[in-house]
Amino acid sequence: MRILVTNDDGVTAPGLLALAQAMEAIPGAEVLVVAPHRNWSVTGHVKTLNRPLRVWETVLADGRTALTTEGAPSDCVAMALLGLVPRPDVVVSGINPNANVGHDVTYSGTVTAAMEAVIAGVPAVAVSLERGETPMEALDYRSAARVARRIVAWVLSEGLPEEVLLNVNVPYRPLETMQGIRVTRLGRRLYRDRLTRCDGPAGKTYYWIGGEPPAGVPEEGTDIGALAQGYVSVTPLQMDMTAYGEHSALAAAFGRWVVGEEE
Amino acid sequence: MRILVTNDDGVTAPGLLALAQAMEAIPGAEVLVVAPHRNWSVTGHVKTLNRPLRVWETVLADGRTALTTEGAPSDCVAMALLGLVPRPDVVVSGINPNANVGHDVTYSGTVTAAMEAVIAGVPAVAVSLERGETPMEALDYRSAARVARRIVAWVLSEGLPEEVLLNVNVPYRPLETMQGIRVTRLGRRLYRDRLTRCDGPAGKTYYWIGGEPPAGVPEEGTDIGALAQGYVSVTPLQMDMTAYGEHSALAAAFGRWVVGEEE
Repeated sequence: MRILVTNDDGVTAPGLLALAQAMEAIPGAEVLVVAPHRNWSVTGHVKTLNRPLRVWETVLADGRTALTTEGAPSDCVAMALLGLVPRPDVVVSGINPNANVGHDVTYSGTVTAAMEAVIAGVPAVAVSLERGETPMEALDYRSAARVARRIVAWVLSEGLPEEVLLNVNVPYRPLETMQGIRVTRLGRRLYRDRLTRCDGPAGKTYYWIGGEPPAGVPEEGTDIGALAQGYVSVTPLQMDMTAYGEHSALAAAFGRWVVGEEE
Repeated sequence: MRILVTNDDGVTAPGLLALAQAMEAIPGAEVLVVAPHRNWSVTGHVKTLNRPLRVWETVLADGRTALTTEGAPSDCVAMALLGLVPRPDVVVSGINPNANVGHDVTYSGTVTAAMEAVIAGVPAVAVSLERGETPMEALDYRSAARVARRIVAWVLSEGLPEEVLLNVNVPYRPLETMQGIRVTRLGRRLYRDRLTRCDGPAGKTYYWIGGEPPAGVPEEGTDIGALAQGYVSVTPLQMDMTAYGEHSALAAAFGRWVVGEEE
């Protein structure tokens, strides 16, 4: 069984290495790593079509070989599944050192890498860690990697429906103190961005988007709620974003449109 | 009523100008344009947090003033809604000279600009044209702009539910020959990308993702099916990607997880 591991923080990120090592502990697993050379956080679902992307071999901190590319996480997955490496049975993305919950999912390189996989027909799991106040440099990814191993082993054995990926978020705590796994829905993020004006040289005006990290509503049943209670959250995501509940109201408004009537 | 117009092809694109002019024809409308300086097609949902973005004033081909930025379409919307311009009542993105149907929506700068708006609580409409074989340079955007005007006028009068945007695709034909509007679901795209290896100077290896333009399954009830029959397609999209149908199977698999059991 081949497991493709990627991430959005870049090929040297410790979360990627921890994930690759955990995947290798799955009996019968062959682990392939194809990951971006640089950090692509908050860059969304990219497909680089307008230029070729350099691909080269690199060595991770534990001596394993990986492929790295100039492309985005979703480019790495696209190239891998178009034949850069033998076709994997599952794609696993992470471990991202910040939660990807609620509205984060369409922005997240970690999650959009998994989207690219399920669009190409390969099951996928995105794994992120809710690190809270712990500094990025001090993170221990081992508990999250163990959780990922269990979930990916289940996906390899049971499969996933077409066009569905699992978005996994793990609270930052020792494995023994985790409450368990909750199957959740996307919660409500509260972004706290502000716009800061910076006046640059030669009269040029710049604006910087940013502020405090996003908060969230820890509602029962959501990913944010599960993490707040010390549970791992597993949210199944589907690529069909159609809002079926709105069809009848819109059909009533537009269904009898006569050309030219808007004049 | 303020209407913010943006796009993903860049501020000089003729589809943007046609859209801005059509919006201005809505009685009582004040049109604001904030659009990227360069083309951001197929770049996904971006939020640029790691650097400031230059913002400057420019003049469109009809003499109107617009703001343009170094950021992505979603950055333009984020900055606009964080106070760069007075708060709009609706955000309209387009007119994209290629359809955005099926799986295109998470990649599309046109659609992710609209996502950024609904996340910030402002109703949004994305407008794209299925141009078929017509060369980009020869496109006449007037019919699509008229359709957009009708739909945006309806949104301004009736509103949209929270977290729902309208993804509008217009067939490339004169207004008189359009069949009407169909309210649709996302169809199934068939991407036809291949991986082409290019050996660069100094032994560097590059791969180029690309191939024929994507095809699609023109199934009844879908955006692709509606366009194929000469209808305008209006697909309501929701930001909640949770696959609710998978909850019970996953809860059965993971709900009773005991820590350490995976050993």
